[in-house]
Amino acid sequence: MKNLKGVALLGQSGGPTSVINASAAGVFLEALNQENITGVYGAVHGVKGILNEEFYDIKKEDIEELKRLKNTPSSAIGSVRYKLKNPKQDPSDYQRILEVFKKYNIRYFFYNGGNDSMDTCNKLSKFFKKSGYECNVMGVPKTIDNDLSVTDHCPGYGSAAKYVATTFMELFHDATVYDTPMVTIVEVMGRNAGWLTAAAMLAKHKNQGPDLIYLPEVAFNTEQFRRDVKEIVKKKGKCIVAVSEGIKNDEGKYIPEVFKELSTDSFGHAQLGGTAQVLVDIVDHALPGVKTRAIEFSLIQRSAAHLASKVDVKEAFEAGRRAVKAAVSGTTDKMIGFQRISSNPYKIKYVKIPLSKVANTEKKVPLEWILPNGKGLTIDYINYALPLIQGDDKAALVDGLPRFAQLNKIRVPKK
Amino acid sequence: MKNLKGVALLGQSGGPTSVINASAAGVFLEALNQENITGVYGAVHGVKGILNEEFYDIKKEDIEELKRLKNTPSSAIGSVRYKLKNPKQDPSDYQRILEVFKKYNIRYFFYNGGNDSMDTCNKLSKFFKKSGYECNVMGVPKTIDNDLSVTDHCPGYGSAAKYVATTFMELFHDATVYDTPMVTIVEVMGRNAGWLTAAAMLAKHKNQGPDLIYLPEVAFNTEQFRRDVKEIVKKKGKCIVAVSEGIKNDEGKYIPEVFKELSTDSFGHAQLGGTAQVLVDIVDHALPGVKTRAIEFSLIQRSAAHLASKVDVKEAFEAGRRAVKAAVSGTTDKMIGFQRISSNPYKIKYVKIPLSKVANTEKKVPLEWILPNGKGLTIDYINYALPLIQGDDKAALVDGLPRFAQLNKIRVPKK
Repeated sequence: MKNLKGVALLGQSGGPTSVINASAAGVFLEALNQENITGVYGAVHGVKGILNEEFYDIKKEDIEELKRLKNTPSSAIGSVRYKLKNPKQDPSDYQRILEVFKKYNIRYFFYNGGNDSMDTCNKLSKFFKKSGYECNVMGVPKTIDNDLSVTDHCPGYGSAAKYVATTFMELFHDATVYDTPMVTIVEVMGRNAGWLTAAAMLAKHKNQGPDLIYLPEVAFNTEQFRRDVKEIVKKKGKCIVAVSEGIKNDEGKYIPEVFKELSTDSFGHAQLGGTAQVLVDIVDHALPGVKTRAIEFSLIQRSAAHLASKVDVKEAFEAGRRAVKAAVSGTTDKMIGFQRISSNPYKIKYVKIPLSKVANTEKKVPLEWILPNGKGLTIDYINYALPLIQGDDKAALVDGLPRFAQLNKIRVPKK
Repeated sequence: MKNLKGVALLGQSGGPTSVINASAAGVFLEALNQENITGVYGAVHGVKGILNEEFYDIKKEDIEELKRLKNTPSSAIGSVRYKLKNPKQDPSDYQRILEVFKKYNIRYFFYNGGNDSMDTCNKLSKFFKKSGYECNVMGVPKTIDNDLSVTDHCPGYGSAAKYVATTFMELFHDATVYDTPMVTIVEVMGRNAGWLTAAAMLAKHKNQGPDLIYLPEVAFNTEQFRRDVKEIVKKKGKCIVAVSEGIKNDEGKYIPEVFKELSTDSFGHAQLGGTAQVLVDIVDHALPGVKTRAIEFSLIQRSAAHLASKVDVKEAFEAGRRAVKAAVSGTTDKMIGFQRISSNPYKIKYVKIPLSKVANTEKKVPLEWILPNGKGLTIDYINYALPLIQGDDKAALVDGLPRFAQLNKIRVPKK
């Protein structure tokens, strides 16, 4: 719908990334420049903010602070993990959103998130159409997991991958400093897709990374793991392991679950701890006397804006900006995605992908890129990932610390 | 002893830091320029390398790679945790070192480490003197713990503190992203001195840090902690806690030990996990239904060279360089330290501190800087710490990843 006049609204959803606010900056700064956009709102905690009529008035923000969002991690206007009810079973959430949109004359809606969010966008867009309400709905991709379909990659992944690769290189130097045997097991986020753990391969490719890399795409074999670690420790004295939090055995059970059952049997109590800790326990039993350490990148890996990739920041910003331009030109029910033209030199095309193609599907690491027995990934992965981690782009330092955006966060009066 | 002609040897000891290699670069590059220094060696894994006559020949290294050591984390020539036997009880280690030093004509010895290393240097220096062997021994300070006496601060601390402060700011943004209650507990290194955990105050000072900060200098009161977390969650919905791994109760027992005993009593099995995990367990019991998360900075905080402080890199390099200059000028049995002239503008004087004054004493955070009940630290700490985290100085990027030093590591032939 072209020449639609009204308010533009952005919502952020799901787990934050280092660059989700760069997309917000793209949406806000572009929307503020558009004649047909009469107001620019940010939903307070995503869809929850919509249901509760809670919006920030972005026109009340300082432009310089909005620009600083590019280098401010996490979700500036608040995120949410709320899945809307299926409109076919219970349309109340959708009806409420329509009511709020009508009340505030919201004619442009941008939702920045992962699979679930694109599904929400898609359903909303269809609901609006069916109800005869004119509103252009655009998805802006975001996820460190890199698991959105159709698009070549996702904003957020490049920076998180850069964090993982850099930190593995640094840990490599630390973990090899003594001449005593040691096994270091590092857990990386990713329940179903191993993209982020795969980034450890970028460090291994520089000979400063883990010996073994386990992704959830391939069933984890505890016996093989035990043998491989033993052999590596025997040969090199050290073994560094990268492991996705979501690795599963050949029955599809998460390893901590498997071990929990086992340990309840053999020790009479349940084991605590995540995947890395469970693997450490396995090594402790297999190699008594060898020092072990479990490390979790935890929330750090998705908020380390000081290590953001310049390519990622730029693309995240552009995705937001282009979503606005597309919506104002009459596009709806699409997500801005990336189509790779070439890897070397790196060249992409921004494309508009139908939301229905993205919604609720998961892109995993291709099996042909994964070497057997945790040996890592093929050069195809390196060629794919390297362009995404290039360059630095971070907040200016004040007092030696990042000067993140400081928003006024003035609420739109409730109608 | 002036005009002493012979080999210069550097040993690295203890836990690595982001800038321990910057000090090595200072020692190596200065030593290579000194006429009286006939060879420059690096001990393979510190004092162990000396006992085993294992040395790297630094003259065989590329100068450009030695310069890159300034931005390469951890111990490039290998470190060690080996405490020499007390020479009064068993002089065999010292006799062996003397024998090796004589064999290779080592006349300058530089030991880069913390309290224990300075004690080793001191004893060695005295042993050489008593044995009539002319060798100038200089200590180069190093520790993220910042617990060396007499010197204003230690190389390694500024960079680790910058990591802690920056990461707390980033975690603050991540941990406050949802509108659901959450308690995040972050464990920082430091068994006895709370300097590194105190750096979380730099983030709190920017209103982007933890609500509560616990240092080992003050007895930890579990009841008070429970009350304070409850109150903060009630008020703000979120609570972020910074905790030293070494916090103790009023009987001087580490909190995980206390809890282990308790939990063995009440659940019949021992609890696993570090300090943060134990505090999370406490919160889980006190605030059922509130989401909790334990995060450990683990080895990352001491190897994050990509976030090194420029001031720290410079001072670490200078400490190494000046140790060589001092030794060549006839100084022995001293450590290069820093005396603060002023904080604003930041000005220090490099000083030579008698090793006996540093050895085996521990400098803790002054009690008058610590606010009661985990409320943080006074402005005195901010004024002290801020100058130490200023500026960036990191490795050049190649392929978007740090280009760390690559040493040839050619061994000196055994005699």
